[in-house]
Amino acid sequence: MFEKILENVRKTVPLIHNITNYVTVNDCANILLACGGSPIMSDDIGEAEEITSICGGLNINIGTLNGNTIPSMFAAGKKANELGHPVVLDPVGAGASRLRTQTAYRLLDEVKFTVIRGNISEIRALASGTGTTRGVDADVADIVTDETMDDTVEFAKKFAEKTGAVITITGAIDIIADQSRAYCIRNGHPMMSKITGSGCQLSALIAAYVTANPEQPLEAAAAAVCALGLCGERAFARMSEQDGNASYRNHIIDEIYNLTGDDLESGARYEMR
Amino acid sequence: MFEKILENVRKTVPLIHNITNYVTVNDCANILLACGGSPIMSDDIGEAEEITSICGGLNINIGTLNGNTIPSMFAAGKKANELGHPVVLDPVGAGASRLRTQTAYRLLDEVKFTVIRGNISEIRALASGTGTTRGVDADVADIVTDETMDDTVEFAKKFAEKTGAVITITGAIDIIADQSRAYCIRNGHPMMSKITGSGCQLSALIAAYVTANPEQPLEAAAAAVCALGLCGERAFARMSEQDGNASYRNHIIDEIYNLTGDDLESGARYEMR
Amino acid sequence: MFEKILENVRKTVPLIHNITNYVTVNDCANILLACGGSPIMSDDIGEAEEITSICGGLNINIGTLNGNTIPSMFAAGKKANELGHPVVLDPVGAGASRLRTQTAYRLLDEVKFTVIRGNISEIRALASGTGTTRGVDADVADIVTDETMDDTVEFAKKFAEKTGAVITITGAIDIIADQSRAYCIRNGHPMMSKITGSGCQLSALIAAYVTANPEQPLEAAAAAVCALGLCGERAFARMSEQDGNASYRNHIIDEIYNLTGDDLESGARYEMR
Repeated sequence: MFEKILENVRKTVPLIHNITNYVTVNDCANILLACGGSPIMSDDIGEAEEITSICGGLNINIGTLNGNTIPSMFAAGKKANELGHPVVLDPVGAGASRLRTQTAYRLLDEVKFTVIRGNISEIRALASGTGTTRGVDADVADIVTDETMDDTVEFAKKFAEKTGAVITITGAIDIIADQSRAYCIRNGHPMMSKITGSGCQLSALIAAYVTANPEQPLEAAAAAVCALGLCGERAFARMSEQDGNASYRNHIIDEIYNLTGDDLESGARYEMR
Repeated sequence: MFEKILENVRKTVPLIHNITNYVTVNDCANILLACGGSPIMSDDIGEAEEITSICGGLNINIGTLNGNTIPSMFAAGKKANELGHPVVLDPVGAGASRLRTQTAYRLLDEVKFTVIRGNISEIRALASGTGTTRGVDADVADIVTDETMDDTVEFAKKFAEKTGAVITITGAIDIIADQSRAYCIRNGHPMMSKITGSGCQLSALIAAYVTANPEQPLEAAAAAVCALGLCGERAFARMSEQDGNASYRNHIIDEIYNLTGDDLESGARYEMR
Repeated sequence: MFEKILENVRKTVPLIHNITNYVTVNDCANILLACGGSPIMSDDIGEAEEITSICGGLNINIGTLNGNTIPSMFAAGKKANELGHPVVLDPVGAGASRLRTQTAYRLLDEVKFTVIRGNISEIRALASGTGTTRGVDADVADIVTDETMDDTVEFAKKFAEKTGAVITITGAIDIIADQSRAYCIRNGHPMMSKITGSGCQLSALIAAYVTANPEQPLEAAAAAVCALGLCGERAFARMSEQDGNASYRNHIIDEIYNLTGDDLESGARYEMR
């Protein structure tokens, strides 16, 4: 099934409107091109809705949010809802500042998201309904392990039910859940945490996958998570002794560029809960 | 002749003021360094004119334009005109939103451009004088082929006459025209469309080339287009099986870094119309 | 000693708040990860102080400063001072526009910096107390050579005394001085000037090093300068004939990723004055 999902991306070339941070924006654009999609970045209120209208999907990432881009997130999000376009939320650093946490809450109130992707701490900050500040990386105490996996799956399903979104919690084990089913994914490599924006790139990739597969957001999000994790493994296998995280970043995007449906189908490692 | 044009860039190290989008800005800076120029990025109204004054040329790119950067484009453009500096316009996404289209129109009204570079749809949006929205990539119907080349040349020459700028339309065949002559260039590789910002990088490169060769803007723009296209070919030849668009991006900038006047002279493939 | 300084970075994983330009921000994030630190980028006044509070150190870089980010620099800088966090200033382009020069002066007045890092022209612009505009690269007349090294050391020590900061002047010879001692460092490679943001990356690296070694800011800044210079040498040694500045950029970050305390201890080349 993942094979078909990937091939739909390559066939339909989904055009994705990204309102995203300026740290990893270039990587997001290149990974969208690598997977077979097409990126547009635009965050001014003077054009946000219009750009959303000509696209197939929307990716909202709150890293480096600011007073100018926040209103554009709302305007584009509502327009995408109106048009029935998939919308992805990446609540980067939710819990780390009141501005981020509260912007994410307000987005959840006013925009219907197809997928919400973050690390466990970000998703917990969103789900808790409180504005306490936390670190931007996942709290060690929260990290998903074999022991805590079932609890996290339950948590994710409940939050999915509440929001109507596919909840995507990424970490050593990734949990992708709607209200009744969850993929627990074991693809990936620890070195992915040593490049900036692997999460941002994944959110952009998910946006392309769900836009090209609108009837199956859960499966499409899971396929995207497996795809990036698998490419993280393959990119690591390609590393020479002199390579470091800069080469690794390039290798991952290269692997996404070369990934076939067949590779994905055979390389995906997950169980259902 | 292209040999001399390239060597003038390396000799004079043109300092280019870029008001550009945050998606591809790093690549624009690195390609300017690669070709022998020197980049400065600055887009605040509090310094835009002053930064233009200390530079040799100006590159205005409207991707991710916003309410803060638009006034800086006008201020810097007018200052550059006043000082007789070459100015390049890259109307990214003209036709895709009213904000972009109308900003581009107003720029054409108030600033005299040396070169305008875009894909065929962007240039048609500018030339049509109407604000209809279109996609940000070239419309398939518009793409320049052998069949439509002569018509496009005529269109480009007329628009060059109207604007006083060298019109640079990039695609499978590139058309670079002033009011009486046109270069039709066949360098390049289809994979260049799989990296973000190959157009932005070309506009930055053109800015360096025309700044270092102020007496020959048509030839300088054509030389820059041949240079990037040739480097796109050479970078592709360097690709291993595992490489993808991330490596390709790096290879292209590397090739620009290593390109000699002799390489360019012998590798340029064009005809005049 | 440098060995221990580097190892402290890898052990303590300093979290660095960066208010920086959008040109080189991705490289700054990746080099912070490469060295063993962790980056957060945030520049909106609505969260700047809060983000500083959850971090260990602050890196303020005035490249592409604007009306929205300048107030955040002051707010975050003061908060970091209040909390006793190390603060690094990179006065990119001080001397090139009144906005940059005067913002840098005001920052010096209102924020206590642990380290100030720039090229000789930027540091001279800061020290002169006047707002005259200059180029953004180091003036040829100012460049530190064996002949002018002792004078530059004196200048740096005096400016260190005046500001209370470790003054880091980078160039062919790097001078890192507090009021009484100076490191004169000869690591590095001329090609480092052919990638955008090698200075910005160094400032981010220094922020990580001084945050992980708060008792020895002079030594930590010197160790960071040696580390990047040494990695510039090693990255150059790794270059193939086809490589250019894009590959070189990646190689440098890769080398920082792989650099051990032992490598640094044995590769650092400096004398004290």
